[in-house]
Amino acid sequence: MKVLITGIDGYSGWPLALHLLRRGHEVVGIDNFVTRKRVKEVGSWSATPIGSFAKRQEAVDRLLGKKITFYKGDMTKFPFVVDVLRREKPDTIVHLAEQRSAPYSMIDVDHAVRTQVENITGTLHLLYAIREATPESHLVKMGTMGEYGTPNVDIPEGFFEIDYNGKHDRLPFPRQAGSWYHWSKVFDSGDVMFATKIWNLKSTDVMQGIIYGTRTPEITDDALLTRFDFDETWGTALNRFAVEAVLGLPITPYGKGGQVRGFIALEDSMQSLRLAVENPAKSGEYRVFNQFDAAYTINDLAELTHRVARDLGLNPRIEHPPDPRVEAEQHYYNPIHENLPALGYKRSRNLEEVLREIFKDLIRFRRRLEKRRHVVMPTVDWRQGDNTASLGARHSGGPAAPTPPTASEDPSRTPA
Amino acid sequence: MKVLITGIDGYSGWPLALHLLRRGHEVVGIDNFVTRKRVKEVGSWSATPIGSFAKRQEAVDRLLGKKITFYKGDMTKFPFVVDVLRREKPDTIVHLAEQRSAPYSMIDVDHAVRTQVENITGTLHLLYAIREATPESHLVKMGTMGEYGTPNVDIPEGFFEIDYNGKHDRLPFPRQAGSWYHWSKVFDSGDVMFATKIWNLKSTDVMQGIIYGTRTPEITDDALLTRFDFDETWGTALNRFAVEAVLGLPITPYGKGGQVRGFIALEDSMQSLRLAVENPAKSGEYRVFNQFDAAYTINDLAELTHRVARDLGLNPRIEHPPDPRVEAEQHYYNPIHENLPALGYKRSRNLEEVLREIFKDLIRFRRRLEKRRHVVMPTVDWRQGDNTASLGARHSGGPAAPTPPTASEDPSRTPA
Repeated sequence: MKVLITGIDGYSGWPLALHLLRRGHEVVGIDNFVTRKRVKEVGSWSATPIGSFAKRQEAVDRLLGKKITFYKGDMTKFPFVVDVLRREKPDTIVHLAEQRSAPYSMIDVDHAVRTQVENITGTLHLLYAIREATPESHLVKMGTMGEYGTPNVDIPEGFFEIDYNGKHDRLPFPRQAGSWYHWSKVFDSGDVMFATKIWNLKSTDVMQGIIYGTRTPEITDDALLTRFDFDETWGTALNRFAVEAVLGLPITPYGKGGQVRGFIALEDSMQSLRLAVENPAKSGEYRVFNQFDAAYTINDLAELTHRVARDLGLNPRIEHPPDPRVEAEQHYYNPIHENLPALGYKRSRNLEEVLREIFKDLIRFRRRLEKRRHVVMPTVDWRQGDNTASLGARHSGGPAAPTPPTASEDPSRTPA
Repeated sequence: MKVLITGIDGYSGWPLALHLLRRGHEVVGIDNFVTRKRVKEVGSWSATPIGSFAKRQEAVDRLLGKKITFYKGDMTKFPFVVDVLRREKPDTIVHLAEQRSAPYSMIDVDHAVRTQVENITGTLHLLYAIREATPESHLVKMGTMGEYGTPNVDIPEGFFEIDYNGKHDRLPFPRQAGSWYHWSKVFDSGDVMFATKIWNLKSTDVMQGIIYGTRTPEITDDALLTRFDFDETWGTALNRFAVEAVLGLPITPYGKGGQVRGFIALEDSMQSLRLAVENPAKSGEYRVFNQFDAAYTINDLAELTHRVARDLGLNPRIEHPPDPRVEAEQHYYNPIHENLPALGYKRSRNLEEVLREIFKDLIRFRRRLEKRRHVVMPTVDWRQGDNTASLGARHSGGPAAPTPPTASEDPSRTPA
């Protein structure tokens, strides 16, 4: 199959490209490199050194003997999107090109608007481009488990059958997102569902759990590494905890730490996306996959990180700063995930073994972390309308802000 | 109370201003006149002649002895929004300033994006401005009954209590909107619900039924008339039917005509909004009102229009063109509406008597309708990605398109 990956330069996009290439698929990519830019904007960088996209392409050529066709451009420009589709006629489009950080969306009014506007504009452009150029393409769109929030009932895969006041229906499951970013993904889901209905498209909406890991089997060389973010804005809780342990900082689960979320290893997320790609939705079908492997509390992650760190001779302690988010710190959580297992999904990695692998990489790249140790702790508070002042304060303790750090992410210019 | 109405120049905004003034409230307004501009863009105008906003203000001064403070500006400019709030410190903000046409949103990709981007940007700006300038203000935000779609179960007011897999919760009722416009209102609802939670705001979300009528008790003079749209893009089904009857055209319910919707008279919609304004939500409360009075099928409207028209000596016939929308043409429909009656809402007008009043006005302004008879029939098809060609074809049968019509809506310059 020919697969177009929008956001191919990102944390998931890059290993997905490698995985699909190894499976014999043809890969075309789009990116505007905005994540690289915005990670710099908050004074951080990837823990793993990543080369320019041209270097990534060269590495794929040299190490895997494969080519990736790449278009630099922005999903908010409709002519660009429709031109790529017309030229490439992909069988499948995996849409990952979105602003993906909840804290970024909560910085202030401009970041809130930018997040929602960019994400829905890109998705609408892609839907119209598919309608116009490749109506037979299968769209695999990246959503998030965070769209559902934490209801006190089981979370089905997108739709549920209910009885209400004596009548029966199958309805979309209610969404209760927890940040402007998560709401933007809810909005995208609505738009994809609607477009699929009116234009008879084929779509898979992936409610993605939180991904962990630095590695997939295809990452056989440092030149093939994917990015790994650990700052408060772009990194996940587990990433932050592991980096905190390596840097000798306290491990910091927010609030009580009873928040439960669905998680999945990077390798298993790639397996899942590949299963979606290789088993397309039917015409007019809008299907939803809850794409996670197991649920953990934030305290589970903190304690596991603590234990693995001690095994490695590190000696972190656990501290609970106040939760900057507005979320339940203790709650019921039981999402259903049957659609991917029905297509053959099998867990290949478990959390502890992946965490040990993450530590191995982080210790190798410890000097890169040391240089950015000030970006790990939260400064963006959900209850504040404007967090720019506290961000500024953090910057002033760190390197060269508001001017972005001058060191490039190109490994040829940075010590690894 | 001091009430800020965003979109004060619109079909609902203007009579709401008059109604609140008569009740002794202070009224401040915002508008950017984009509806006037966009109605011209599709080659149409208001059936009722409406003056410039300055003339409207003069008429209010002369006929009611009241003042309206007005700010011309755009909700997509955050400094404008926050400045008005800081200066005026309203007790209540009624947010009506949105792109409000479903067919307009379905014209092509640009109109789809514009609708969703403008609406969510304006609402986010207003939410942040309230957070910053007037966190005690009560926000009354205009949504639509169309957010719910047509589920096979009763439609509660925003939230429902359900049992699912043996557990219980109170959840937002699922939304299944039927156009990009209707989805934009769903998105706004999500954003208002979330902002209310994280910032402890006060909000009322109005799921507005389709409004009918040209008159409220406060419209005592032609200089106080509100706009009345009848073209396929900006007019409702009932408006189109009445105009078709006056012009000797067939009355045209789309498809089978079994589509059921909730309706409310203009006067009763104003009563409802006033009840929301005078009985504000509590801090941290996000409440939803299903604001309609009775449900009718499109055929009910067509047949009633036919009957009233015959009584007036007109002799229209009913024709069923194919439905350009993607919607169920026969379905269950039972929305609950108890919140407004609990605040004292009582129906003051019924459909037939209001329809006779509409005909009276339309017959007075018949010459204005004659000049725009080509804009009544649908050219925007939900199944098409790009409807600009068919819009263009219609324009060429009408006046001066793509150049907008040159006649002003100012009654001093147009024959009435």
